[in-house]
Amino acid sequence: MNLKHTLSGLLSLLFTALFVLVFSNGVFANLNDPLPSWHNTATKSAIIDFVQKISQKDSKDYVPPQERIATFDNDGTLWAEKPIYPQLQFAIDMAKKQAQSHPELKEQEPFKSALDGHVENILAQGPRGTLELIVRTHTGMTSDEFNQSVKDWLAQAKHPRFNKLYPQLVYKPMLELLQYMRDNGFKTYIVSGGGVDFIRPWTEATYGIPPEQVIASSVKCVYEIKDGKPLIKRLPEIQNIVEKNGKPLAINATIGRHPIASFGNSDGDLEMLQWTQNGSKPTLKVLVHHTDGEREWQYDRESKVGHLDKALDEAKANGWTLVDMKNDWKQIFP
Amino acid sequence: MNLKHTLSGLLSLLFTALFVLVFSNGVFANLNDPLPSWHNTATKSAIIDFVQKISQKDSKDYVPPQERIATFDNDGTLWAEKPIYPQLQFAIDMAKKQAQSHPELKEQEPFKSALDGHVENILAQGPRGTLELIVRTHTGMTSDEFNQSVKDWLAQAKHPRFNKLYPQLVYKPMLELLQYMRDNGFKTYIVSGGGVDFIRPWTEATYGIPPEQVIASSVKCVYEIKDGKPLIKRLPEIQNIVEKNGKPLAINATIGRHPIASFGNSDGDLEMLQWTQNGSKPTLKVLVHHTDGEREWQYDRESKVGHLDKALDEAKANGWTLVDMKNDWKQIFP
Repeated sequence: MNLKHTLSGLLSLLFTALFVLVFSNGVFANLNDPLPSWHNTATKSAIIDFVQKISQKDSKDYVPPQERIATFDNDGTLWAEKPIYPQLQFAIDMAKKQAQSHPELKEQEPFKSALDGHVENILAQGPRGTLELIVRTHTGMTSDEFNQSVKDWLAQAKHPRFNKLYPQLVYKPMLELLQYMRDNGFKTYIVSGGGVDFIRPWTEATYGIPPEQVIASSVKCVYEIKDGKPLIKRLPEIQNIVEKNGKPLAINATIGRHPIASFGNSDGDLEMLQWTQNGSKPTLKVLVHHTDGEREWQYDRESKVGHLDKALDEAKANGWTLVDMKNDWKQIFP
Repeated sequence: MNLKHTLSGLLSLLFTALFVLVFSNGVFANLNDPLPSWHNTATKSAIIDFVQKISQKDSKDYVPPQERIATFDNDGTLWAEKPIYPQLQFAIDMAKKQAQSHPELKEQEPFKSALDGHVENILAQGPRGTLELIVRTHTGMTSDEFNQSVKDWLAQAKHPRFNKLYPQLVYKPMLELLQYMRDNGFKTYIVSGGGVDFIRPWTEATYGIPPEQVIASSVKCVYEIKDGKPLIKRLPEIQNIVEKNGKPLAINATIGRHPIASFGNSDGDLEMLQWTQNGSKPTLKVLVHHTDGEREWQYDRESKVGHLDKALDEAKANGWTLVDMKNDWKQIFP
C-alpha cells in the first residue's frame, strides 16, 4: 500500500502551492500599483491616501461603501476637449447632413458658419451659439434614433490633430483612477455640461460607467404612442444645463447624497467641488490642470474652451488637489 | 508514526464534508424558495420563469446583467397607500407644526382643512389640493433640513388603522421580490409620483434601494453659499411630476435605458408598463391588484387613491401579470 507516498505527494503539493502563493504575491506587490500611468508625486499620494483612509474599517475617516460616491466632469477631465468640444464637432457634422436634405439651412445661422467651417463665429456668440446649433441638430427625432446617430458618428469621426477616433482620446491616467476607485467600492458618476444623450452611448465601453451613472444636460422630451409603439421624442428646447450651479443641483436631484470625491478641470466644475467639500467627512477635490502643450494642450485662464480661472484660485486657497498633466502623468492617451 | 491514522482521519473528514454538503443542499432546496410569502400560483410562476429565462446564459432570451433594470412604483405597489397617501399625512402633520409658529395659516386653505381634520376637502380638489399642501409644507428649508424632518416623522408617526410605523406597512412579498431580483443581477429602482426627498431617506433601510435609485417628483431648488457653507434650498415650485407620461420620461432621463421589468398598481403606472413592453426582448409587466379588503384594502376603478381602471383593461388585453393580493400572497405585512 502506498499510503506513505500518497501522503508525501499531498504534502509536496501543499508546499508547492504555498511557494507559488508567496512568490506570486511578492511579484504582484510591484505589479499592483493601481495608478501606473501616474508619476509618484504628491498628487498621486493625495489620491491614494484619501482612498485608503476612507476604506479602512478601523480608520476614524471610514466611509461605508454605499456612501462612496465620486463625480467626474467629462470634457477636459476624462477626455480631450480641444480644439473644440467633441459634441460641437458632432453638431457641425450633423448640420452638414441636415443641410443635404434641407438646403435652405445653408443660408441660416448658425448653420451657415458651421457649414462654411467658421466655427469661430459660433464660439464668438458664447454658449448661446453652441447651444443653438446643438438644439437644432440634436432634436426632432426619437431618443433611440439619436442614440444611433451618436454611435454612428463615434465609429468613424476622427480628431483633427491626433487623427484618432474620439473615444481613443480619453486620458489613460483617469481610466486607471476610475477603475481604482471602483475597486475600492466607489460608484463613479459623470456630471457633465454636455448632452446626456451624447455621452451615454459610449461611456460604458470606454470608462466602465453605465448610462444610469451619467448626469448631464438635456433637452425636453415627450412620450407618444405611434402605430401602437411607445416612443420618446426630442423637442428643440433645453430642459436642464448641468454646469456651474447646475452641477450640485443635478447631483442632489439624481443621486440624493453628497459625493465624497469630485474631479473637474474648469470653472464649470467649481460649484460641484464646493458641494463635495461640504460636511465634516474627509473629501477629495481634484482639478485637472492642462499644463502639457506638447502631448496635449496648455490652457487655463485665457481659454474659452475649458476656462479655468476662479476655480484655480479656490483650489489654491482651499488646498484642493491640482493635477499637473505635464509632471503628474507619464502618459496621456491609451 | 501515525500516517495511516492521519490519512484515514483526512478521508473521514472529507466524507463528512461531502455528506453535510449533499444533505444541506437537499434541505436548502426546500428552504430556498425565493418568494416564500407567495402562494404557488400562476403569478409566482410567471415572475420566476421570467427571471430564470433572462438569467440563463444559454437561453435565447438571455439579458446581460447591466441591462437588468427593474422599476417599481412605490405607493400601493411596495407599501400601503390607504386611507390617504402617507406623504399627504406627513404634509398634514407638517402643516400643524407650521401653524404653531404661523397662526395666520389656520384660516387659509388648504391649511384650514388639513388642521380641522377635513382631508376630504383637500382630496375633493383632485391632485391640485394635495400638491398645494405638499408644496407649501415641503419647501423653504434646505434639502438636508427637509431630509431630517422626514426621518423624524417616520420614527414616530403611526398608521391610523394598523397603529404601526409607516415603514412597517411595506408588503412582505414585494420585499422578497426586490431581493430575489437583485440576487439575479437586477438593479431595482423606485419610480414614484411621490416626492423624491420624502422617499429617499428610508428606502435603503426598508427596501435595500439606495437614494440614487429613487426617481420621483421634485420641487425646484437653488444652490447658495451661506456663511461660507454651500447649501441647496427648496423653492415652492414644482420641478417635475413623475406620474403617467412622466414615468417613462423620467426613466429615460435618469436611467437612459429601457427597464425589462416594471411593477405598478394604478393608472399612474400605465405608461411605465407600456414603455417596458417596448422592444423585442422578453419583459415583465406586473400590476398589483388590491383585492384583499380584510388584510389590506379592496379597490380599483372607483378609488381616488390608487385609481386603477385603464391600466387594468390594458393588462388584461396584453397579458400583463396581475397580482391578486388575496389569493397570491400568504402574508401582506412583515
